[in-house]
Amino acid sequence: MNNFVFQNTTKLILGRGEIAKLAGLLPKDKRILVTFGGGSVKRNGVYDQVVAALEGFDYLEFWGIEPNPKVETLRKAVEVCKNENIGFLLAVGGGSTLDGTKLIAAAALIEEDAWELVLNPKLQRGSLPFASVMTLPATGSEMNRGCVISNLATGEKFAFYNTFPVFSILDPTTTFTLPRYQRACGLADTFIHVIEQYLTCVDESPLMDRWAEGVLQTVVEIAPKVLSDENDYDTMANFMLSATMGLNGFVAMGVTQDWSTHRIGHEITALCGTTHGQTLVMVLPGVMNELREQKGAKIVQYGERVWGITEGTTEERIDRTIAATEEFFRSLGLATRLSELGIGEDVVEEIVRRFRERGTRLGEQLNIDYAATDRILRQRI
Amino acid sequence: MNNFVFQNTTKLILGRGEIAKLAGLLPKDKRILVTFGGGSVKRNGVYDQVVAALEGFDYLEFWGIEPNPKVETLRKAVEVCKNENIGFLLAVGGGSTLDGTKLIAAAALIEEDAWELVLNPKLQRGSLPFASVMTLPATGSEMNRGCVISNLATGEKFAFYNTFPVFSILDPTTTFTLPRYQRACGLADTFIHVIEQYLTCVDESPLMDRWAEGVLQTVVEIAPKVLSDENDYDTMANFMLSATMGLNGFVAMGVTQDWSTHRIGHEITALCGTTHGQTLVMVLPGVMNELREQKGAKIVQYGERVWGITEGTTEERIDRTIAATEEFFRSLGLATRLSELGIGEDVVEEIVRRFRERGTRLGEQLNIDYAATDRILRQRI
Repeated sequence: MNNFVFQNTTKLILGRGEIAKLAGLLPKDKRILVTFGGGSVKRNGVYDQVVAALEGFDYLEFWGIEPNPKVETLRKAVEVCKNENIGFLLAVGGGSTLDGTKLIAAAALIEEDAWELVLNPKLQRGSLPFASVMTLPATGSEMNRGCVISNLATGEKFAFYNTFPVFSILDPTTTFTLPRYQRACGLADTFIHVIEQYLTCVDESPLMDRWAEGVLQTVVEIAPKVLSDENDYDTMANFMLSATMGLNGFVAMGVTQDWSTHRIGHEITALCGTTHGQTLVMVLPGVMNELREQKGAKIVQYGERVWGITEGTTEERIDRTIAATEEFFRSLGLATRLSELGIGEDVVEEIVRRFRERGTRLGEQLNIDYAATDRILRQRI
Repeated sequence: MNNFVFQNTTKLILGRGEIAKLAGLLPKDKRILVTFGGGSVKRNGVYDQVVAALEGFDYLEFWGIEPNPKVETLRKAVEVCKNENIGFLLAVGGGSTLDGTKLIAAAALIEEDAWELVLNPKLQRGSLPFASVMTLPATGSEMNRGCVISNLATGEKFAFYNTFPVFSILDPTTTFTLPRYQRACGLADTFIHVIEQYLTCVDESPLMDRWAEGVLQTVVEIAPKVLSDENDYDTMANFMLSATMGLNGFVAMGVTQDWSTHRIGHEITALCGTTHGQTLVMVLPGVMNELREQKGAKIVQYGERVWGITEGTTEERIDRTIAATEEFFRSLGLATRLSELGIGEDVVEEIVRRFRERGTRLGEQLNIDYAATDRILRQRI
C-alpha cells in the first residue's frame, strides 16, 4: 500500500425531500449566487423547491452553464460574483453545473482570467465557499474537489481542482425525469471512474479492491432497473450513492490510479462535443487491450469478481473480460465504437498530434504516449 | 434506503514514517497536552518519534489512560487542561487513549464532572480540538466521534460522542510489536463493528452491503498473516485501514444498524474487565441465534458472500453461518464461551437485572429486552 493522506469534508445529505434543508445550511449573512444549467430543473420541480427553501435569503440566479461547461460562459458568472459582492455559490443541477461553479468560485477571487487559472493553478487565491443540489448521478463532483472545464475557442478540455463542496443535497426523486440516455451515460461514467482507480496493480489493498469492485458490482446490478421506466426509489438512491462514492476518494486510498481513458476521452469531447460517459466507453476497451500485459493480473481479478469469468488461459480470460465490459456498455444502449458517432481518422490524428506536441504520457506507468494513443484509438474506430 | 446525513472531517494519514508529519499538523500557538496509555509507546519507538516531531512546541504529557478508560483517570487530565491552559490534545497509543481523550477534550470546557457529561450529553459546550497517533488497529476511534468510557466506582460503561479528530496518523510499522492477543482482539473488534452496521435488513443498499462485506472479507483474508510473526507491512497497513474504515460511517450510509452485541458486551466488560474485542465474540453468536428469523435473509446473504455457504435449507444455512462465524473467532485464538473466561450465571443475572431496571431495549427492532438478553447470554455460557 502506498502512503496516503485522505480528507473529504463535504456534508452529504441524501434522501427524499431533503432539498428543504437548504434553508438551514446556507449562510444568512452572505449574498448567494445560485447557478443553473439549461432549465431542466424548472421542468422537474427542483427549481421550485430551491426557491421555496431560499425564501428570505439574499440571492441572485445565474443560468446557462452547459454540459462540458465552457469557460466563455463561466467568465460571465465570475463577473457577477465580482460586481455583486457574492459570498457563497449554490450549484443546482448536474455535474456540469457544479463543475463550472467550482471554477467560478476560485476565479472570483483573482484578477486574472478564468482560463489562465485552469492552465496555471498557482494563480489560485482561495475560493468562495460553494455547495450543490445535485440532480444527475454521474460525475461525483458533489463530493470531490475536481472539475473539468472546456474552452470553446481553443477546443481544449482540462481538469481543475478547488476545495470540496461545503454540502451536497441529493434527492433521488429528482432523477425520475432523467432521459434514458443520460442515465446510461451516468452509469458508464460511474463505472469508469472506479475502473480508473482500480484497474492497475493487484495486492496494494485488498480492501480498496473490494470497495471498488463493490461499486462496479452495484452499477452492473442496478443498471437494468435504472434504465427502466419504473423509477424505483431505492434503485435511484443507490445509483446516486454509487456515483458519489465512485469518485470521492473512498476507493482510492493507498492505491495506484490510471486516468488515461479520461484524458483521451476529454480530447474527443473537446473536439467532437460527445457526452462524457458515452465518450469514455469507446476508449476504455482500447486502453485495456493496449495494457493487457501490464494490467493482466488485475484484469483477471476484475473479470472473476465482477463478471464471474473463472475459466480459460490468462489470455482468454483477459479477452473475455474486455468483451464483457464492452457488452455491458452496449447493454446500456451506448456506442462503443468511434465510427458509430461519425468519429474517424481525422480526430484520431489530431489527438495524436496534440499528445506528440505536448509530450503527453498517461497511465500508471506513463507509457501511454502519442504512439500508444494512436494504437488505442485506431482499434476503437 | 433511509435518508441520511454523512460527514467525516478527519484527515487520515497512513503510511511508513508519517509520524514526522506531526510538526506540520499541530498548532504552534496553543499549549498541547499529549495523552498516553501505559507505556508501550516507549518500548516500540513511537514515543521517541513523537517527541522528535514535537521539538519547539509547547506541550505537556499525561500518562496512564488505561484500556477501557476510566473516568477516575480522565478527571485528572481534565484538571490539567483547566489549570495549564491546554488548547489542543494529541492522543498517542491505542483506541482507549483516544477514547479517553475525546471525553477529556469536552469535559475541559465545562464546570460539571466528566461522568455527568457522559450521562447527560446536553451539558457539552464544544470541545478542545484533538488528534491522534494511533498504534493499534481495532476501535476505529481515529476517524469517528465516538468513545466508550468506564466508571470504576459504579461498574458502568457507556458511549459518548464528541467531534471528529482533526487528524489521525497511522504508521503500520508501529503495530509490529503488538502481541498476538491484541491483534486477535483488534481483528474481532473490526469484524463486529461492521457486523453491527450490516447484519439487519437486506435490500436497503446493495453498495453499503458490498462495502461492509468487503471489510469482512478483507479481515478474514488477512487474519492469518496478521497473527503470524512475519509483520508483513502491507498486511498490517490493510489491517489498520480495515479497522478505520469499519467504524467511520463509510459502510453505514442509509442503512439500519443494530449494536446490541456491543451494548451487551459493554456490560460484561464493565463487570468483568474483559477485553472489548474478546468480549464481543462471546456475545455475537447468541444475538444471531436469538434474531435468526428476523435477520434470516441477511444472515443467508452474509453466509454466502463472506463464507461461501450456498447449500442447504435456510435454517441450515443460518446454522452453518453462525457456526462459521464462531469458528473464525476461535481461529483467532479467542474464547467464544463465557465460561472459558470464568464468567457464569451471576454476571448474566446482574446484566439482566440492569436491563430490566433500565427498561433497555436493543437491536434494530428494539426487541432485545432483558428477557431476550437472558436467553442470549445463557446459551453463551
